[in-house]
Amino acid sequence: MKKARTKGNPVRRAAIHDLYERPMSGEAIEARSMLTVDTEAGSHAFTPEQWQVVRRMIHATADFGLVESVRFSPDAIESGIAALRAGSKIYVDSAMIRAGLSLARLNRVNQGYEPSDVLCYVAHRSVSAEAKRQGLPRSLFAVRKAGRALHGAIAVFGNAPVALLEINRMIIEEGLRPALVIAMPVGFVHVTESKDELVSLGIPYIAISGRRGGSPLAVSAIHALCSLAASGERGSRNEPA
Amino acid sequence: MKKARTKGNPVRRAAIHDLYERPMSGEAIEARSMLTVDTEAGSHAFTPEQWQVVRRMIHATADFGLVESVRFSPDAIESGIAALRAGSKIYVDSAMIRAGLSLARLNRVNQGYEPSDVLCYVAHRSVSAEAKRQGLPRSLFAVRKAGRALHGAIAVFGNAPVALLEINRMIIEEGLRPALVIAMPVGFVHVTESKDELVSLGIPYIAISGRRGGSPLAVSAIHALCSLAASGERGSRNEPA
Repeated sequence: MKKARTKGNPVRRAAIHDLYERPMSGEAIEARSMLTVDTEAGSHAFTPEQWQVVRRMIHATADFGLVESVRFSPDAIESGIAALRAGSKIYVDSAMIRAGLSLARLNRVNQGYEPSDVLCYVAHRSVSAEAKRQGLPRSLFAVRKAGRALHGAIAVFGNAPVALLEINRMIIEEGLRPALVIAMPVGFVHVTESKDELVSLGIPYIAISGRRGGSPLAVSAIHALCSLAASGERGSRNEPA
Repeated sequence: MKKARTKGNPVRRAAIHDLYERPMSGEAIEARSMLTVDTEAGSHAFTPEQWQVVRRMIHATADFGLVESVRFSPDAIESGIAALRAGSKIYVDSAMIRAGLSLARLNRVNQGYEPSDVLCYVAHRSVSAEAKRQGLPRSLFAVRKAGRALHGAIAVFGNAPVALLEINRMIIEEGLRPALVIAMPVGFVHVTESKDELVSLGIPYIAISGRRGGSPLAVSAIHALCSLAASGERGSRNEPA
């Protein structure tokens, strides 16, 4: 590789030299970012714990529209924290969510968490085969494969609305009771219906209304719950029965 | 698990039964979604090839604001297609992007692509150790670790602006010449500066101006380039020299 400029034409100063001269760690950058989120978000009606979730979601996407579109059931935070502390399984609908989830963060809540506690079946051969055979999306059969493992689990949807529709059916017809459903599928077909149905079912949820969603939002919601669960701020006095 | 309702109170009909009765495959849902994107996006100044990239990014996020914020260098599509056809390395700044990239899509362009052609160093032990030692973000040392492997590669940033700042420095100071930089870091610190600097360097780029970005956007941009490269529509007559 050769120098970008010749001798008589001095090399332009790259912007990163400012950072080299005044180093900031990843943690320091995150703290400054969160301060910006808090400052620019303006007023809202979230509880302090709910805001920890929403601000991390804004941090992950720079989308302040989330202040208007994130919905919590009243029991969502408590139920999510309790499930994480108990080491409950985490079902995820995409490989991106599995890749984004930090085992270190989960272990700060419960040392027992292992990679195998994060269930992701969307790329399994049997799931693909059944989807092809029935002419329906793979994500639907991934949820079915999880089946009873979803009982008491945190179920996370950041991609496929059809998967959320299928867990809704299992809640309605089979009495399935996840500890928390993170309902953040994204897109244009089945998306709003899947979320509207979920929030009517009496199951703890964190959802984004409308078409928006995505894997980074789902991951940041779980990571925020991990921070709340690890901080111990809520102690045992507020633990759900 | 027990039934959600008692005998005298019939079980509510789950919304997914409409889909069971009129099955739609994942591909059919995607096609209908893309039609919605095309219809609602309104007018824009993208070339047909550029629009294939932007519409897939909108599909991944339901964010129509992308029509106003995605920027292409004039040579970006051609250079990206040529690099994919040549089987060039793909550097990614997050495990989520690596997990989201489809090897099947890459292989439709070039059969030779293997998982090891997707370079991701952010979780390497040496990278973490150096970041801790110097008090700077890991993503910076991940780019440095890639070093000369970035020459002629597709470099993809969907997370960390500091990584983009560092590759900018390597372009300016070391004459590094990636085939294409996908510049979609997200956030509040260093983000706009990193993108503004990149687009001034004369390297082929696809960028999102402002604070927005994220792994799903970066993945969908590459997948759209894969579709263009595999379709053969541009043939060899337009190949860059």
